[in-house]
Amino acid sequence: MSNTLGNRFKLTTYGESHGPAIGGIVDGCPAGIVFDGDLLAAEMRRRHLGSEATSRVEPDTVEILSGIYQGRTLGTPIAFQIRNQEAISGDYDELHDLFRPGHADYTYSLRYGIRDHRGGGRASGRETAARVVGGAIAKMLLRGKGITAEAKVVSQGEMVGHDSSGGIIECTVKGLPAGIGNPIFGKLNAQLAAAMMSIPSAIGFEMGAGFAAAMMHGSEYRDEWNCGSSRHDATTTPTVTNHCGGIQGGISNGMPIVFRTAFHPVVTIDQPTKCLDANGNLHIWQPRGRHDSCHIPRTVVIVEAMAAMTIADMLIC
Amino acid sequence: MSNTLGNRFKLTTYGESHGPAIGGIVDGCPAGIVFDGDLLAAEMRRRHLGSEATSRVEPDTVEILSGIYQGRTLGTPIAFQIRNQEAISGDYDELHDLFRPGHADYTYSLRYGIRDHRGGGRASGRETAARVVGGAIAKMLLRGKGITAEAKVVSQGEMVGHDSSGGIIECTVKGLPAGIGNPIFGKLNAQLAAAMMSIPSAIGFEMGAGFAAAMMHGSEYRDEWNCGSSRHDATTTPTVTNHCGGIQGGISNGMPIVFRTAFHPVVTIDQPTKCLDANGNLHIWQPRGRHDSCHIPRTVVIVEAMAAMTIADMLIC
Amino acid sequence: MSNTLGNRFKLTTYGESHGPAIGGIVDGCPAGIVFDGDLLAAEMRRRHLGSEATSRVEPDTVEILSGIYQGRTLGTPIAFQIRNQEAISGDYDELHDLFRPGHADYTYSLRYGIRDHRGGGRASGRETAARVVGGAIAKMLLRGKGITAEAKVVSQGEMVGHDSSGGIIECTVKGLPAGIGNPIFGKLNAQLAAAMMSIPSAIGFEMGAGFAAAMMHGSEYRDEWNCGSSRHDATTTPTVTNHCGGIQGGISNGMPIVFRTAFHPVVTIDQPTKCLDANGNLHIWQPRGRHDSCHIPRTVVIVEAMAAMTIADMLIC
Amino acid sequence: MSNTLGNRFKLTTYGESHGPAIGGIVDGCPAGIVFDGDLLAAEMRRRHLGSEATSRVEPDTVEILSGIYQGRTLGTPIAFQIRNQEAISGDYDELHDLFRPGHADYTYSLRYGIRDHRGGGRASGRETAARVVGGAIAKMLLRGKGITAEAKVVSQGEMVGHDSSGGIIECTVKGLPAGIGNPIFGKLNAQLAAAMMSIPSAIGFEMGAGFAAAMMHGSEYRDEWNCGSSRHDATTTPTVTNHCGGIQGGISNGMPIVFRTAFHPVVTIDQPTKCLDANGNLHIWQPRGRHDSCHIPRTVVIVEAMAAMTIADMLIC
Repeated sequence: MSNTLGNRFKLTTYGESHGPAIGGIVDGCPAGIVFDGDLLAAEMRRRHLGSEATSRVEPDTVEILSGIYQGRTLGTPIAFQIRNQEAISGDYDELHDLFRPGHADYTYSLRYGIRDHRGGGRASGRETAARVVGGAIAKMLLRGKGITAEAKVVSQGEMVGHDSSGGIIECTVKGLPAGIGNPIFGKLNAQLAAAMMSIPSAIGFEMGAGFAAAMMHGSEYRDEWNCGSSRHDATTTPTVTNHCGGIQGGISNGMPIVFRTAFHPVVTIDQPTKCLDANGNLHIWQPRGRHDSCHIPRTVVIVEAMAAMTIADMLIC
Repeated sequence: MSNTLGNRFKLTTYGESHGPAIGGIVDGCPAGIVFDGDLLAAEMRRRHLGSEATSRVEPDTVEILSGIYQGRTLGTPIAFQIRNQEAISGDYDELHDLFRPGHADYTYSLRYGIRDHRGGGRASGRETAARVVGGAIAKMLLRGKGITAEAKVVSQGEMVGHDSSGGIIECTVKGLPAGIGNPIFGKLNAQLAAAMMSIPSAIGFEMGAGFAAAMMHGSEYRDEWNCGSSRHDATTTPTVTNHCGGIQGGISNGMPIVFRTAFHPVVTIDQPTKCLDANGNLHIWQPRGRHDSCHIPRTVVIVEAMAAMTIADMLIC
Repeated sequence: MSNTLGNRFKLTTYGESHGPAIGGIVDGCPAGIVFDGDLLAAEMRRRHLGSEATSRVEPDTVEILSGIYQGRTLGTPIAFQIRNQEAISGDYDELHDLFRPGHADYTYSLRYGIRDHRGGGRASGRETAARVVGGAIAKMLLRGKGITAEAKVVSQGEMVGHDSSGGIIECTVKGLPAGIGNPIFGKLNAQLAAAMMSIPSAIGFEMGAGFAAAMMHGSEYRDEWNCGSSRHDATTTPTVTNHCGGIQGGISNGMPIVFRTAFHPVVTIDQPTKCLDANGNLHIWQPRGRHDSCHIPRTVVIVEAMAAMTIADMLIC
Repeated sequence: MSNTLGNRFKLTTYGESHGPAIGGIVDGCPAGIVFDGDLLAAEMRRRHLGSEATSRVEPDTVEILSGIYQGRTLGTPIAFQIRNQEAISGDYDELHDLFRPGHADYTYSLRYGIRDHRGGGRASGRETAARVVGGAIAKMLLRGKGITAEAKVVSQGEMVGHDSSGGIIECTVKGLPAGIGNPIFGKLNAQLAAAMMSIPSAIGFEMGAGFAAAMMHGSEYRDEWNCGSSRHDATTTPTVTNHCGGIQGGISNGMPIVFRTAFHPVVTIDQPTKCLDANGNLHIWQPRGRHDSCHIPRTVVIVEAMAAMTIADMLIC
């Protein structure tokens, strides 16, 4: 489970920030899908949006190793790889025995007893590049079915010097027919929640009216039918409002799927930082170079990627 | 996936509201756990808390069919069953061809082409009884490891006549050691989100500081180390604050796991209700009997059950 | 995995031989399949074929608890249950601390540290009744697609007084279109092998020409095409011979699927038996009552059940 | 499932014979295992044993891309890659629209509607290189627990000019403690059967006494206890004979695990070959270059690899 997303349309990823490469395998993508390299490249660029401040500014080059032949998917695993640039790992030497606050340094150490401390290792935000590749392939599949997943920033924390801020991203999936999803534990909303909460720095998720719905009355909350809506008339939106976010009983109802994900600010900031060592002592560490003050704009494409893969997974099963 | 929760500690459930029985199978529970029938009965009673208004007031009787021998788990599947009482299914005849607003009637029909309309069928809130049984068994397992999962209502909508209200439930898991969970897609927080969002009427989920964290600065959000915290000193809480809710990089950090789930109000209310038929026409339907105005108090035990099973699943792997 | 078969059409079973009941849940069966109670009853009777000698002669009564409404499957989990008769568990008291040779007594004890010794507990051949129920439901699904799975005894050991014998069962699946299955690790032949080898007393499996193919030359082994065979002409069998057993690269080729499973004799025989205790001492135990001298005839329906479920699983994905 | 082996120790593979690369990801390997590059290289060489006749004589070079740091596994996914050499794909042009007998050309076309015909594409025996890498990593894990998996050819078809032959390989796993495995559907023997039958050209599988056991009497077949055997005395082999092959009820009993796999001869032979086209017409095709007359010697390491991964998977769960 740990490094694999999905049950039918499956993405398995690998890679440490300062290892030779990161990448992954998409297994379960149907055969015959047109592979759109431009879409992939554009998505990769979106992941660099607003990251003027990071030390690795160039968009990553993705090499496809299998599963595509003469411009179409074969139905076999699609492997891809992104070589890591020559990163200055030495910058991280002083972190070898330190646990930064807010990072996964401490928890990885306890989980595995060993860790690659350079640049966050496996826990680096760099792994999201593999998500974007998987998402681009999912979008190629969804496009043929008239389904889109589009996200946007709906709220962003104030940006101040030498600090970081978070925000909220809303995603809307359009074109998904009614009747997609599963009941009980495999609900579409539950799968979307898991997908979103797996994104680094995700801290909250809500469908439709979300937390506000908790304070509504039932008469206010429940989405009334549009007269004329029925399975025989797919041109009409089935309900007047969309408080439920397009899912009932874990299954799509034909309305747009709407959900929001909250992201906390990145925890590496340009300030002296108290790190813990294995003996329980604190050390002051000053991050070098410049760091992103806000990762929200470039998280939009990651939200879309995770949504697209989740929907693709549901469509195949 | 659809009717099974978990990968190691697995609960598979079954049952329609007005069929012969509902129940499930817990597979993967370790051998030798003391089976506590009193705990199970108490949990089932908690699920009836405040449900004075529903027509089925008596707590359900759970029969264990396998997996327990001489008061201990065998390591083999634990099957259980709750017979459905003689429900007056005739009450639902008029709903045979109607889709209630806010319910899964419409989506199940489109998903399966056939549905048991009586009492909501498979989509009835009644299926949560099976979750509570699974949760009770998980709690028996966790108890031996000093881990507890306790939830409470932190916010509840105003209750008014002939309408329903929702609310927010907070759950805290204590005693979980640091180092439990997995990175990338199988993150503990992602698994908890999926578990919570699978509960009927769940509409939002957040860890720790949650949506509020989106507006914090990094310097404010990140949880500072307690001096003296380290793997060698488990008696000290590792961080001063707990904005992350006890999970970093998908893995527990030794702080309490804290999360909140928002629930929308139930959509069956004691008011004339516009239902859709298969031809797209609306019909007015008046629910009979009395219905719950607020299901939040008795959802607390369901939240705990889902949390306990999710944690048990993580501990076994 | 342990108590669940399949990935889409899934059977999860439970039950100890002398517990309250055995049974299972079929999850993933499509909606709208006509439920044929007569077929189920007939299959259950076939499982008792030639078992005149066992103490439990009456065919088991299967109760369906969910997933069927008005004679059709709902697409929701189909739970079923077979109550255990009043078995004389006392007969097994002397086995409480003994490990019989050839049985799973010893291995279960080491695996779980605890076991229900009565009648073999979970390891009893009685669990195969749940397989037959799952198989009957799979057959109801396959019937609508013109697919049959029929097995027969092709070889049986000599039967002598006070001893047991084994045999070989061949199964043929007809009507399966070409193109069903998956490559690499999920091959149809690999799935069939796992299904068959999971049947109690199975000790060997072979497809088509089987072990004999190891001594053939390639020119002899490879199945030549029938002229006129092609995807456009499904009425012609694609190959002249069927040494491969109808599967190439893990995927069906349109020929009948043919495989054989070898079963060793049952290890409980009507003779004084040396049992081991936990201290490494041997004790002579004389099995009471009469026991089956040959279980092969009634294993035929179990082979078919496992084949039908494996094929159903492949068809859904 | 299709391209992934295992549930805990998982290998996912990718790659077409004439694409840019083949490779895979091992997910679930515990942290801290010493990575032995020499072992890996030696295993890769064993896969080329006796393949003097194939056009690609050089052993493949394996590049590790992640999951290893300072000579040890990190507990994160271990990705590896083998670049395909400049193969002369043009040799295969004439096969673009032809289905060779005995190959997966026809079944892949029906399964996917599209295929990479060059060198067998995904169905090429070349994919077994990825199995050997996964197996080598599993062996590094097993070595630390004193477990070995060793296979040998026990029977091989007569070799004659311009034809191919098959054979039987026996594998013995030593050092596996009693109590490893799972009952019912996840039996160790069932998992081994699936693993072996997934190897290209595998056509039969048997444990211990195998098919011969079908003709034995129970008194002859059942393995008698060694006096003095017990869980408290692991130095004694538990049984006098090992007809069951070391597994009872799906769980190891402390005896060596012994099984045999039969392989049919390779179906590409140096003779004029009747191929089918999409219209059902036959064409004579003469394979170019020289081809292996017998692949059995170099299949030994693949058998070991699959056994090692299966055992590793069982040990982790």
